[in-house]
Amino acid sequence: MQHQDSRFPPVNEDSPFSPDDRFYAEEIQLAFRNQGMPLEGLRYPITPTRMHYLLIHFDIPHVDVEEWSLEVGGLTSKPLRLTLEEIKRHPAVTIAVTMECSGNGRALQSPRRIGVPWQLEAVGTAEWTGTPLRGLLEEAGLRDDAVEILFTGLDRGVQGDEVQYYQRSLTIDEASGEDVLLAYQMNGEPLSPPHGYPLRLIVPGWYGMTNVKWLDRVEAIGEPFHGYQMDKSYRISQTAGELGEPATLIKVRALMAPPGIPDFLTRARLVEAGPVTLTGKAWAGRSGISGVELSVDDGSTWSEAELGEQVSRYAWTAWSFGWNATPGRYSLCVRATDSEGNVQSADQSWNYAGVAENMVQRVHVLVE
Amino acid sequence: MQHQDSRFPPVNEDSPFSPDDRFYAEEIQLAFRNQGMPLEGLRYPITPTRMHYLLIHFDIPHVDVEEWSLEVGGLTSKPLRLTLEEIKRHPAVTIAVTMECSGNGRALQSPRRIGVPWQLEAVGTAEWTGTPLRGLLEEAGLRDDAVEILFTGLDRGVQGDEVQYYQRSLTIDEASGEDVLLAYQMNGEPLSPPHGYPLRLIVPGWYGMTNVKWLDRVEAIGEPFHGYQMDKSYRISQTAGELGEPATLIKVRALMAPPGIPDFLTRARLVEAGPVTLTGKAWAGRSGISGVELSVDDGSTWSEAELGEQVSRYAWTAWSFGWNATPGRYSLCVRATDSEGNVQSADQSWNYAGVAENMVQRVHVLVE
Repeated sequence: MQHQDSRFPPVNEDSPFSPDDRFYAEEIQLAFRNQGMPLEGLRYPITPTRMHYLLIHFDIPHVDVEEWSLEVGGLTSKPLRLTLEEIKRHPAVTIAVTMECSGNGRALQSPRRIGVPWQLEAVGTAEWTGTPLRGLLEEAGLRDDAVEILFTGLDRGVQGDEVQYYQRSLTIDEASGEDVLLAYQMNGEPLSPPHGYPLRLIVPGWYGMTNVKWLDRVEAIGEPFHGYQMDKSYRISQTAGELGEPATLIKVRALMAPPGIPDFLTRARLVEAGPVTLTGKAWAGRSGISGVELSVDDGSTWSEAELGEQVSRYAWTAWSFGWNATPGRYSLCVRATDSEGNVQSADQSWNYAGVAENMVQRVHVLVE
Repeated sequence: MQHQDSRFPPVNEDSPFSPDDRFYAEEIQLAFRNQGMPLEGLRYPITPTRMHYLLIHFDIPHVDVEEWSLEVGGLTSKPLRLTLEEIKRHPAVTIAVTMECSGNGRALQSPRRIGVPWQLEAVGTAEWTGTPLRGLLEEAGLRDDAVEILFTGLDRGVQGDEVQYYQRSLTIDEASGEDVLLAYQMNGEPLSPPHGYPLRLIVPGWYGMTNVKWLDRVEAIGEPFHGYQMDKSYRISQTAGELGEPATLIKVRALMAPPGIPDFLTRARLVEAGPVTLTGKAWAGRSGISGVELSVDDGSTWSEAELGEQVSRYAWTAWSFGWNATPGRYSLCVRATDSEGNVQSADQSWNYAGVAENMVQRVHVLVE
């Protein structure tokens, strides 16, 4: 059944999204499970826990913390097994981190990989509290022949024809970074089940897939890990067969809190004519933000936004822009540049998996 | 791009969902904003806050509670204006309530209304704490000419060509029910922004749309309210033009926590052969559950499940069923009967808005 409203574009075969870009029921199911941050959440420096994005590969495990303990072992001289209480007795650090799914923007690609069809909502910033991993690795006595640390979650399922626990690895160098945490609190409270209760990895600056949830084991290994989530997923390649490069640090991106009020169905915006302050956030893995630019003419011309403070070294930076809105239809765009000079592009570059893309956001606005 | 896995059905034009039933980008956007309860959440008597479903009509308002107060007025002899602290000084009640969106199951209808394309995940059970509304209505001195109470939220947007605040009404009788609450806590904590901070209405037994969030005003009115959310939405009719009947109390439904482990993409299940305990919950507005039945042959034959305790008078009842799973492919179905004898039907009945439907759930399982 079609939808037609006098102000906003129709939702039917004539919609800006052609029938070829329509979505499968399986993608809808993934969209309801893997929750986005409604973009009005960009107004908060720290995203309320209930609004932070979520990506859940398999099922959310139910963990009885009385039965649970973490194994820190593999190529170590003194393997550990620690209860949550024991982990909490280690030195604690709290860090604000902007986390983004590497697949954010996937549904804007054409053709797109069938998967979680993120538009732009797979982001959030939280304060994570935990103990630095490197302290535990020292305590366990990493052996010299260890080359990577393998992280195994309790979530298990089938992907790419393989029955698997969710597993990712990091080099010893990366895993020993001072801000890599085994976190047990989010925004000052115990992790909720979908966020990895009782313990998860936090690797500030990396895309979300690295931050393994529901941790079961941390193992030092002697060869690079080639599991499904390393070699067959989260790779930047042009074809299915090609290995390509891994997605690692979060690329530069800015997003705007949509101004005015929404149309329920299309989320197009209705804005009252007059001065409007556009606001949002910009971030880039481990880099700072050197500038944010706004365009009110679909990217033809750009103006500098004003930057606020960066929430933390690993978190987003607020920006604002004064716009004198006059009646008409607009496509508002925002783009950021990071401190290394990388800038978002107006057009989506493309890769097979639809990961690590950072095309500029467009917000459709009717000013009356 | 197509997905093909040796065990599970493909996600492409040959999938069980025909191309005609494919979804629009706008529906995907709504699915990421309006979050489902992953069905493994059925294992909890009380849904963890982070897993409870969410329906957000317009934008989530940002409320500064220092500036906020509730108006209780209209046809009253002593209109009130109350801060959150003042509301909290009124008698407090905590009630466990199963809440379900009236559109739950909409995406299973064919043709379907373009809207929030729920499959079956729009449900959750929480403990709500607040003060009974009827105490405040007495305090404000309801006048005899009042016939309804109108609830207005702070969320504003465009729907059906009307710029509107979200508004719903109840008869004086309904609004004066002993368990109708103005709630400020969910599961023992202040409401989160998407759940209606600082104050929302809770009407146990009714579909979700009645439980107005971000309350701004409670007004006694002298005529039945005919706003968009009453007369043009949440109606059970066969055509767009027909007024039909309103959706009110939640109909009987049972859901199963999917057994075994999931295929990432299709969520089809892989189960190990042997004894399996199927579990889930069943609920029915203000009724109890008199029985839950399971079918392992797509609804041809049914067997009684064992019922557990009802979590509260307004909340779901646990059920379990022992299944001796032998290798093969199965379509597991579950259906409930309420204490008034209403039973779910195997086939979806249909209405234009896709509301108040309760077709049985089917879970596709491969036993190996």
